Amino acid sequence: MAHRIDVASILFAFALALLGAKVFGDLVARMGQPAVLGELLAGVVLGPSVLGLFPLSDGTFLIAEIGVVLLLFEVGLETDIEKLFRVGGSALAVATAGMVLPFAGAYLLTRGLGYEALTATYVGAALSATSIGITARVLSELKALDTREGQTVLGAAVIDDVLGLVVLSVVAGVAEKGVLSVGGALRTALFSIGFLVLAVVIGIPLGHRLVRVVGRTSVRGMLISASVAFALLVAWGAKKAESAPIVGAFAAGVALARTNRRHDIENAVGPIVDIFAPVFFVYVGAEVDVRVLNPAVAENRPALLLGLGLTMVGFLGKFLAGFCAWGNVRRSFIGAGMVPRGEVGLIFASLGLATKALPEGVFVAVLAAVFATTFVTPPLLKMLKPRTA
Amino acid sequence: MAHRIDVASILFAFALALLGAKVFGDLVARMGQPAVLGELLAGVVLGPSVLGLFPLSDGTFLIAEIGVVLLLFEVGLETDIEKLFRVGGSALAVATAGMVLPFAGAYLLTRGLGYEALTATYVGAALSATSIGITARVLSELKALDTREGQTVLGAAVIDDVLGLVVLSVVAGVAEKGVLSVGGALRTALFSIGFLVLAVVIGIPLGHRLVRVVGRTSVRGMLISASVAFALLVAWGAKKAESAPIVGAFAAGVALARTNRRHDIENAVGPIVDIFAPVFFVYVGAEVDVRVLNPAVAENRPALLLGLGLTMVGFLGKFLAGFCAWGNVRRSFIGAGMVPRGEVGLIFASLGLATKALPEGVFVAVLAAVFATTFVTPPLLKMLKPRTA
Repeated sequence: MAHRIDVASILFAFALALLGAKVFGDLVARMGQPAVLGELLAGVVLGPSVLGLFPLSDGTFLIAEIGVVLLLFEVGLETDIEKLFRVGGSALAVATAGMVLPFAGAYLLTRGLGYEALTATYVGAALSATSIGITARVLSELKALDTREGQTVLGAAVIDDVLGLVVLSVVAGVAEKGVLSVGGALRTALFSIGFLVLAVVIGIPLGHRLVRVVGRTSVRGMLISASVAFALLVAWGAKKAESAPIVGAFAAGVALARTNRRHDIENAVGPIVDIFAPVFFVYVGAEVDVRVLNPAVAENRPALLLGLGLTMVGFLGKFLAGFCAWGNVRRSFIGAGMVPRGEVGLIFASLGLATKALPEGVFVAVLAAVFATTFVTPPLLKMLKPRTA
Repeated sequence: MAHRIDVASILFAFALALLGAKVFGDLVARMGQPAVLGELLAGVVLGPSVLGLFPLSDGTFLIAEIGVVLLLFEVGLETDIEKLFRVGGSALAVATAGMVLPFAGAYLLTRGLGYEALTATYVGAALSATSIGITARVLSELKALDTREGQTVLGAAVIDDVLGLVVLSVVAGVAEKGVLSVGGALRTALFSIGFLVLAVVIGIPLGHRLVRVVGRTSVRGMLISASVAFALLVAWGAKKAESAPIVGAFAAGVALARTNRRHDIENAVGPIVDIFAPVFFVYVGAEVDVRVLNPAVAENRPALLLGLGLTMVGFLGKFLAGFCAWGNVRRSFIGAGMVPRGEVGLIFASLGLATKALPEGVFVAVLAAVFATTFVTPPLLKMLKPRTA
């Protein structure tokens, strides 16, 4: 068992992340804000740019990813597919507007400041995809997952994740080969949408059968093991189908939510999510480099100004998209739920930096906008929460 | 978030390990054997030497280690420290005899076959340390953790783990510097025993305080997060004090078992252990290379014969040590509980191979003996289980 990774130091980082997440989460909750904001702040403080106690290593990354996959599985378990379908058209409208508006705004702003078209394309793409993790967690804390608004945001965020991956494959294709591949984009779109539909359509009867087979055994932990294994397999399949693991885990949860053991699975998954999901939010917070955000340092200012502009464009684009929702819903709440950016935005930015499409300053500005939209969402959702929820 | 590790493929291996562990565990349980035997067999089948679906990678290793650390934490939660103290002398006698007898037997056998003294020392050391993971899991499945026999085995296995680390530091010192360092051995012994005592002595009041502080908050999952963070911190501290993380996690569990929230913590830790611990047993099984165990291949035979001899010496040494237990107990059950070897044995063997103290054939023989003792234990314990349990 001689390995390159230092397990003890990962256990230490894991423990610190949990403690920090809960201490900051409790403080923030006492101030009336969603706990996840505290978990993100814990990450900033524990992360490399402040205390340096929580490393951005392979080990912490794996724990964080397991956390977010299981979180989306849990959110799926709490989702009623019929309700989700009922808001389907509305969610599609919100998702589409929520990609087009920030993309256009960020593109025009970047071009207007004299940057190249490729640079502006990366910036636009980075600001177009909503991070479902943050929103799902806040909706869950506000007990708003089950409302019409919550379902619309969830539906739109899932569609948005799929669209984001399509845009990613297009932009990555342009960066790699220098040509825009419509075929490649269509292929990714078809694959990932097809997988999502298949996962739910096949997943529902499969989930029923799984629960029946598992009911016959006396081995400890069979139901939870089989359910989590199912979620992990669909998450892996989603990745293979050029979609994202979290989208697959969500679909697996939606499928198992139709079984009669739904609550037993939820109860068992709960503590696992309690332990692993905070590591994801701490990890996201730890990625914030506070040094480049210091306005007292003169050379940070141009990037911070661009970042401020991108934050406003990015915020308004998603927020206004919420007003494309139909029916008797609080549109501002839906818009706010679409605001946070996360992994996909960071992937775009990193890819842009690596291929030199993004100058260092623009890269920092995009990061600042991604983080600002993430940190502003929990209090905003709390403020705009509809009374019915 | 661009990382070297491929998260999707780790999720796939994780899912397969869970499914394999449960399917094989269920089959084996239907045959009246402890399910953990099935989980080990699942590892052999999924591992690199048969199907090659479960890799021995950094990612699966980390998940396995989290699993065994949380398993020992759970076992600690089920342990009554007063009962453990009542069997303390008896456990110390069993542990000491259980190190001396297999060490002497394996040393003499290896020397008798004409190998060097250093080679024989490595072989003896590799066969001297009990693997607490397997035994604890079987005791838990047999509901024998709480019996006098179970407590003696647990106590002896913990002492044994500490002694094993002392032997490891001595042997590693010899291998590195070519000299036997009595001072280094004493230092390791003092450190790791001191840490264990401190962890429990300080851990008990700390655990009470932790539960009290946590009771004041409304943040979701606070008790379980704080408890697991506590376990991970003590596990990390144990490693820093030259002991093993699993010993620290066990001590943390023992400390929290004294609090009034013991059952709430146990209930929440249960599903996490259900998901992560099987990966540990699958990992151990996956380390078995069935090719070198094939007696039809002529060149495997000398190593297999030596392995058979070492298995017998290793088995008898631990089994007879059980008869050093005091009081009205089933000594054969205690002896059987001490039989399985695991990580520490594998570390010795790998270290011996790396420093060329062990020729390839002897290395294979040691591995065969380590695995044979591991696989024979679950059915043996099941057979010898005292009626009182």
